Amino acid sequence: MYNEKVNISSESVRNAAKEAIARRGVLISDIAEIVFEMQYPYSNGLTLAHCIQSVERVLNKREVQHAILVGVELDELAEKGMLSQPLQQLIESDESLFGIDETLAIGSVLTYGSIAMTTYGHLDKQKIGIIKKLDTRDGTGVHTFLDDLIASIAASASSRLAHRIRDVEETGESIAGRDKV
Amino acid sequence: MYNEKVNISSESVRNAAKEAIARRGVLISDIAEIVFEMQYPYSNGLTLAHCIQSVERVLNKREVQHAILVGVELDELAEKGMLSQPLQQLIESDESLFGIDETLAIGSVLTYGSIAMTTYGHLDKQKIGIIKKLDTRDGTGVHTFLDDLIASIAASASSRLAHRIRDVEETGESIAGRDKV
Amino acid sequence: MYNEKVNISSESVRNAAKEAIARRGVLISDIAEIVFEMQYPYSNGLTLAHCIQSVERVLNKREVQHAILVGVELDELAEKGMLSQPLQQLIESDESLFGIDETLAIGSVLTYGSIAMTTYGHLDKQKIGIIKKLDTRDGTGVHTFLDDLIASIAASASSRLAHRIRDVEETGESIAGRDKV
Amino acid sequence: MYNEKVNISSESVRNAAKEAIARRGVLISDIAEIVFEMQYPYSNGLTLAHCIQSVERVLNKREVQHAILVGVELDELAEKGMLSQPLQQLIESDESLFGIDETLAIGSVLTYGSIAMTTYGHLDKQKIGIIKKLDTRDGTGVHTFLDDLIASIAASASSRLAHRIRDVEETGESIAGRDKV
Ligand SMILES: [Ca+2]
Ligand SMILES: [Ca+2]
Ligand SMILES: [Ca+2]
Ligand SMILES: [Ca+2]
Repeated sequence: MYNEKVNISSESVRNAAKEAIARRGVLISDIAEIVFEMQYPYSNGLTLAHCIQSVERVLNKREVQHAILVGVELDELAEKGMLSQPLQQLIESDESLFGIDETLAIGSVLTYGSIAMTTYGHLDKQKIGIIKKLDTRDGTGVHTFLDDLIASIAASASSRLAHRIRDVEETGESIAGRDKV
Repeated sequence: MYNEKVNISSESVRNAAKEAIARRGVLISDIAEIVFEMQYPYSNGLTLAHCIQSVERVLNKREVQHAILVGVELDELAEKGMLSQPLQQLIESDESLFGIDETLAIGSVLTYGSIAMTTYGHLDKQKIGIIKKLDTRDGTGVHTFLDDLIASIAASASSRLAHRIRDVEETGESIAGRDKV
Repeated sequence: MYNEKVNISSESVRNAAKEAIARRGVLISDIAEIVFEMQYPYSNGLTLAHCIQSVERVLNKREVQHAILVGVELDELAEKGMLSQPLQQLIESDESLFGIDETLAIGSVLTYGSIAMTTYGHLDKQKIGIIKKLDTRDGTGVHTFLDDLIASIAASASSRLAHRIRDVEETGESIAGRDKV
Repeated sequence: MYNEKVNISSESVRNAAKEAIARRGVLISDIAEIVFEMQYPYSNGLTLAHCIQSVERVLNKREVQHAILVGVELDELAEKGMLSQPLQQLIESDESLFGIDETLAIGSVLTYGSIAMTTYGHLDKQKIGIIKKLDTRDGTGVHTFLDDLIASIAASASSRLAHRIRDVEETGESIAGRDKV
């Protein structure tokens, strides 16, 4: 009955991951703004549109989608009080020594390399933009996993941009005026 | 209402993690047998008791306990059909490109170093002992996370033993005849 | 004098990494054969050409190139006796508890996700194909880092293929008869 | 001639790692000060002595010692111009997309769990205390690996303290007035 090998379509997984983020109140442009703030000191001609495009590319990755699906599910189950104890309490109270939210985020950001990882750590502590908002919505929901996921997506999109911009610059060109990076 | 800072006692977390493994049909001696099989070619005088002790030390680590609580919870929720789609399907069918079970296991095994990590990868593919049994219990339950967790605990306990045995040997002694390593 | 910000061209780094592997006696087809052996049970129509192409794509990644450059450098410096003690001895003797070779390999394979990581651990212990040859060339050179790097490249290329093949299959097609995957 | 299985004494490795850090101009108290700054907001009664003790415990770990030996060796070889190109240039210029320094540091900090990892990322970007000094010693040496290693040791010692303090607090006591944590 279990373990039947059914292929779940990539499209349904991708849509569900994007829908999960939206349902939790995070816009792609919220994440792109963090990317822009991280990356514009190093990149002449960088626009918010470049950052949005990079976030969307990150969200197209299976590892990232799976991390989102699991993390948001756990946040939502905790909100409904549907987890068993003591896991319910650990997640609901965002226990300071509980690190599975970081583990999930790290697993996903590491697919963008070790520098993306370092950037994630920075964002997770600095809590800029939407990450700060999630952190201060105390009492109105559980975002134990969501804040780390958003930080990891922003760090991945930043790192992806840094690599792309280098590739463009090596050809002697600039990203200014380009639609896509 | 959420996010109150309550400390959950370490003891309740430890007990819940051990209870979760037992409830899923895995004995500490099952894991210790894998450790013994991995480690005895390199260790004169190694006994199953040493391996049991090492598994218990691994199970005392917070990171390991948290990974067990989350992984077993997801397996059990999937068995009850209580996850939302497509996550329910991904976990229930043990989808081959779903890697969050590996991510959780890796996060926990990496606290024992990079060699423990390599050993985990080996165990996860070789499926020896209880890991094989979990894998072939098709149709009777969901063990998508459990097999990786058990492989990571066994790999961690093996690596821990290898380090300890080296420390003992450097003093010019052997572990043979010792109760504890 | 140091720390001047000079951009090193991507092409020179890529060429140096490929040259380093060749200089150490490993052909791209050696690595592709491991990939083929890992992947053909799951992939109708898979050819060695597909595997060669996948290995080449992995070798185009900056993280992978950097790991190769550092690992091969350390192997070669150890062969020439040019490292300081005790590092010289640790690398020259392939000390069993020295895990920086695994760390480098893990950092690179993790950019292909957690399943690639598990595959790497398996390959590193099973030592199939060229990895076994490197391991048994005792006395004729130092390959402490090289064996792990090759296992990580093979695991990355395998994982990359698995993802690509799934994408093709979802369109209702097969990779049989295709030049590129 | 190579690959003889010689055991290198743990003591010689530990001493070499501590000596390497000292030779590069970093005191244990420099690292402890970063730990103190990170941890004192959360810990009543925390002293610099507690932080020094925690740093020393971290430096007793084989994984950490090995990472230090490799990282400092590469910094020093780069200073002497003894690496082959383009690796010499990548390390000498602290190339922004070169991430092997981060990879080494991550491998070592991950043995203290995922939260230690996040803290490392923060420290690496914030560059507080000695890390900042290393970063601004432009022109007088290569510290491409050292800054990441110091950030990882400080993050590990912070995380280790957080876990210990929790354990003490659970017994109803405080670390104030205690010599050891
Ligand atoms: Ca969190
Ligand atoms: Ca699994
Ligand atoms: Ca090796
Ligand atoms: Ca650095």
